[in-house]
Amino acid sequence: MRVVFQGERGAFSEEACHKFLGKNIELAPCASFEEAFRRLERGEADRGVLPMENSLAGSVHDNFDLLLRHHMVILAETQVRIVHNLLVPPGVTFAKIRRVFSHPVALNQCRAFFRRHPKIAPVQFYDTAGSVKMLMEQRPEDAAAIAPAAAGGIYGAKILMRGLEDDKANFTRFFLLARTRRGWKAERAVKTSIVFTTPNKPGALFKCLAVLALRDINLVKIESHPLHGKPWEYLFYVDFMGRPTDERCRNALRHLGELTDMLRVLGSYEVVK
Amino acid sequence: MRVVFQGERGAFSEEACHKFLGKNIELAPCASFEEAFRRLERGEADRGVLPMENSLAGSVHDNFDLLLRHHMVILAETQVRIVHNLLVPPGVTFAKIRRVFSHPVALNQCRAFFRRHPKIAPVQFYDTAGSVKMLMEQRPEDAAAIAPAAAGGIYGAKILMRGLEDDKANFTRFFLLARTRRGWKAERAVKTSIVFTTPNKPGALFKCLAVLALRDINLVKIESHPLHGKPWEYLFYVDFMGRPTDERCRNALRHLGELTDMLRVLGSYEVVK
Repeated sequence: MRVVFQGERGAFSEEACHKFLGKNIELAPCASFEEAFRRLERGEADRGVLPMENSLAGSVHDNFDLLLRHHMVILAETQVRIVHNLLVPPGVTFAKIRRVFSHPVALNQCRAFFRRHPKIAPVQFYDTAGSVKMLMEQRPEDAAAIAPAAAGGIYGAKILMRGLEDDKANFTRFFLLARTRRGWKAERAVKTSIVFTTPNKPGALFKCLAVLALRDINLVKIESHPLHGKPWEYLFYVDFMGRPTDERCRNALRHLGELTDMLRVLGSYEVVK
Repeated sequence: MRVVFQGERGAFSEEACHKFLGKNIELAPCASFEEAFRRLERGEADRGVLPMENSLAGSVHDNFDLLLRHHMVILAETQVRIVHNLLVPPGVTFAKIRRVFSHPVALNQCRAFFRRHPKIAPVQFYDTAGSVKMLMEQRPEDAAAIAPAAAGGIYGAKILMRGLEDDKANFTRFFLLARTRRGWKAERAVKTSIVFTTPNKPGALFKCLAVLALRDINLVKIESHPLHGKPWEYLFYVDFMGRPTDERCRNALRHLGELTDMLRVLGSYEVVK
């Protein structure tokens, strides 16, 4: 089984791949989220693993937009605890470090570290694990990376410090995607993600939420994204507990169809602990 | 009147400053949103102008978080049409350009330009106008910047192309902030921004929206932001039309207070066209 994910080997997405599918998989790193979607769509991979939301930084809007553009099946979701570590090429000591490379979101989640060490400057890089890879190739003597521990083993870097993140309640939620429903089990799906737009009228969103609330369906997330081409109008992404084969949910979705301009069920999926 | 804003002279925020306050103001550029808030709070400036939302990229979450942490008065909102231009130091011709510097959001809004010119690479920089300033100082022969037209006049750069943005329906919404209510006029305030958290129970958000909908109060925006420390729980930011001096709105806010764990009125303000 070949699995596409965004980032370099050792990224947090790789940990999510193993959590979903075990160790016996072929990992296919991609430069961008879009490339991961495209390769999965073309059949160059069997599964895709994409980060959808971080409990501190919020949703990965790009991936929600890509889900809407590409017709994929969501098989499962899981969450990975984000632990940021300080990695260096062998030989670099803490006293020498003046620059720390990482993804902007990771740097932003380790502010206390940079406050405690004012001589060390954060430097934005395209990827967490990718910054370890770059340091191991270029071997600067004054630089470290903030990255997952797994990147240490993969590139031969040393872990100098663990748990640099300011807030330990730091989790990222991933989706396991496939091109077809093969392998998808209706009875395991417990959560459903939908997206819709409403007519631009007072009370329109309220009516949509009433459809769920009046049927005691538990809405667990709602988020608005800008609707391109229509300033200050929004797409609503909603997650609720339930599967479309339940009569309540089926009725709610039919009812939502009456109230929305556009409605798409992105998927119903199992939750992997 | 001294006005703080984030970015370099010539930034889109500067255009918003003039739209709110006319030409006769003293501009005080700040390196970060946080610095702008801090300087305004300390009394080092009379007004602050901060971008809150872009019609394509979505909300500027950092500024909503800062509004919640600092107690500021929102006097007004306005919107600025975002036009991206290609600027170069005098002497640089289009044929020579291989790199274009700008803020990541601006680069991302000019994808068609980079597709049409595959020899030109986008390079991320901390600010749109700041990249013009940097080019005028360093004078590389192969580089341009994507920035507001105003940055050309300020730094002496030449505008080679106008309107590079993919989507012309590109607006940014700004708030005009002050430390005190002096200058705030209740009768002009037509829009109110609030933020709240709900108990983690099914239907909690639905009830909050009912408070507005059942009083025919027009909700114009709702957005969820991650609640730090509580993974997968959210702060809800809501904008509605109305002012707290209206009885309907006053009642709705009192009613919301009964249903929410935390409720804050960020401000009621006028809308400057």
